[in-house]
Amino acid sequence: MGASPLGSWNDGPARRAIVAYVTSTADERSPDFVPPADRIAVFDNDGTLWVEKPAPVQTGFVLGKLAERVAADPALAREQPYRALAERDESFLRALDAQEPDAVESMVRAVGAAWEGTPFGAYEAQAARYLASWRHERFGVPATGLVYRPMLELFDYLRAHGWRLFVCSGGGRDFMRVICEDTWGLPRENVIGSAPEFAWRDGTLVRRATPHGPIALGPGKPEYVLARTGRLPRLAAGNDDVDVEMLRSAPFALLVVHDDAEREYAYTDGAARAQSAARRYGWTTVSVKHDWKTVLTPPHTQEEPSAPGQ
Amino acid sequence: MGASPLGSWNDGPARRAIVAYVTSTADERSPDFVPPADRIAVFDNDGTLWVEKPAPVQTGFVLGKLAERVAADPALAREQPYRALAERDESFLRALDAQEPDAVESMVRAVGAAWEGTPFGAYEAQAARYLASWRHERFGVPATGLVYRPMLELFDYLRAHGWRLFVCSGGGRDFMRVICEDTWGLPRENVIGSAPEFAWRDGTLVRRATPHGPIALGPGKPEYVLARTGRLPRLAAGNDDVDVEMLRSAPFALLVVHDDAEREYAYTDGAARAQSAARRYGWTTVSVKHDWKTVLTPPHTQEEPSAPGQ
Repeated sequence: MGASPLGSWNDGPARRAIVAYVTSTADERSPDFVPPADRIAVFDNDGTLWVEKPAPVQTGFVLGKLAERVAADPALAREQPYRALAERDESFLRALDAQEPDAVESMVRAVGAAWEGTPFGAYEAQAARYLASWRHERFGVPATGLVYRPMLELFDYLRAHGWRLFVCSGGGRDFMRVICEDTWGLPRENVIGSAPEFAWRDGTLVRRATPHGPIALGPGKPEYVLARTGRLPRLAAGNDDVDVEMLRSAPFALLVVHDDAEREYAYTDGAARAQSAARRYGWTTVSVKHDWKTVLTPPHTQEEPSAPGQ
Repeated sequence: MGASPLGSWNDGPARRAIVAYVTSTADERSPDFVPPADRIAVFDNDGTLWVEKPAPVQTGFVLGKLAERVAADPALAREQPYRALAERDESFLRALDAQEPDAVESMVRAVGAAWEGTPFGAYEAQAARYLASWRHERFGVPATGLVYRPMLELFDYLRAHGWRLFVCSGGGRDFMRVICEDTWGLPRENVIGSAPEFAWRDGTLVRRATPHGPIALGPGKPEYVLARTGRLPRLAAGNDDVDVEMLRSAPFALLVVHDDAEREYAYTDGAARAQSAARRYGWTTVSVKHDWKTVLTPPHTQEEPSAPGQ
């Protein structure tokens, strides 16, 4: 471990709680000791590991693809979610943001259909091209520049104490996997997210329209973590209501609170239930404004992914 | 790495092919060089990592549970697979062994129903109790004594060259996870297998009757490997027909051939298609009789699993 772990964290209650818990879990004499095999930490992505405002990075990738589909088949514009997107229907976008089941389901269906039959390598190449040109509208940085430096330092700190790290996001698993290695230092197999099943077509594995299991949102998060790791997490970090179940499944939970309009964004939408759960269950809240000395990470250029598989 | 890697392997064509491939993949000047992130090796379990005759270790666990269900509800004995099991219907067992879809599907349904509603920790405890008392009818050893020592050495050899290892078996994921850490030195998240979805009940995650995705057999194996790791494997090892698609998905494939009636078993049932594929695609065959100096691993006692989760 470096001389100054968690160097971007102010010496406040959040940093102290993290250090106390993580060091205890590695101390066999502590009642909080966690056997090495059980040291599983899970992190939400949008709003927990990187900036999610004004919209999550993946949003433009999906909306661009759906717009292409409508251009190719204008009849689609009569159905949801295409109609709402074509009409810039703010109420639909708000429903989506609030994870309302009908809106989410129509998007899941549309996303499934949009990439149905796409070989997995072609999907990754599309995602990598999108990320290579994408810039944040306010900060002007590529997506990798939106990553919170304190969270990357937390990754290092946990790894130094023998933890295994997983990202568990409702976002697209195969989208995040394009950046996970260079940006988070996590192998692809440590990324859990919403994903399609695959099918064989002409000797290649292609994406199917059907999702692979439940969406990694709400109760789906701990379900996925258990299915993937055979354990529930001992540390979980999130920032909004769809993280509540995952945070409840861990004995130590971090809730990122977005309260810094100057260096990031200040908002509570989508997080009311999470903030009340934090008080009720004694979670450690992380204030962007007060707990973080530095917020963003200097960006690096995202390279095109190497050819997957053979 | 120890002084004598792969010490239980005779200096024959299989060992030489393994050493040549694995050292090339770590050599940047070699055309077979594999970037570290892509060094994914996958292994079937029954018949590849341990003895699967006269029946796979898990078989008695499943049949015992199904017999309990029939005892509790005798009407079940009129349905498949319960009827076939009650009548010791050899043709059904052969169909199951040959992975015939109807037989497999009825078993998948019965297994799903048998443990529906069981909390994941209770399932593990049942599996651990079964393994603690189970002994091989011929060798008299516990299940962990059936593991092929040469394959554990291959694990070590691959790890020493920067490979990440996964087991991908049609067997029960959560059954294998009880032994994976002590026996294979693999964390639970590196075990891929057939598994149920989970559901929340009374604040606990319990097994559902529905399988989580396809079964990890045949084309399901590389589908699962890709879904889990974001890559296709660069090395795959198997021993029978349900491994063919996984072996075809890797540039280097090992097929274990069971030809040693004295130290293990000699059989080709369920492996005809695999052996013909080995000739056609130039896979490396591993003869138990000729390639392995030592076959089995001295057993260790399987301890009850520690309490999962919190």
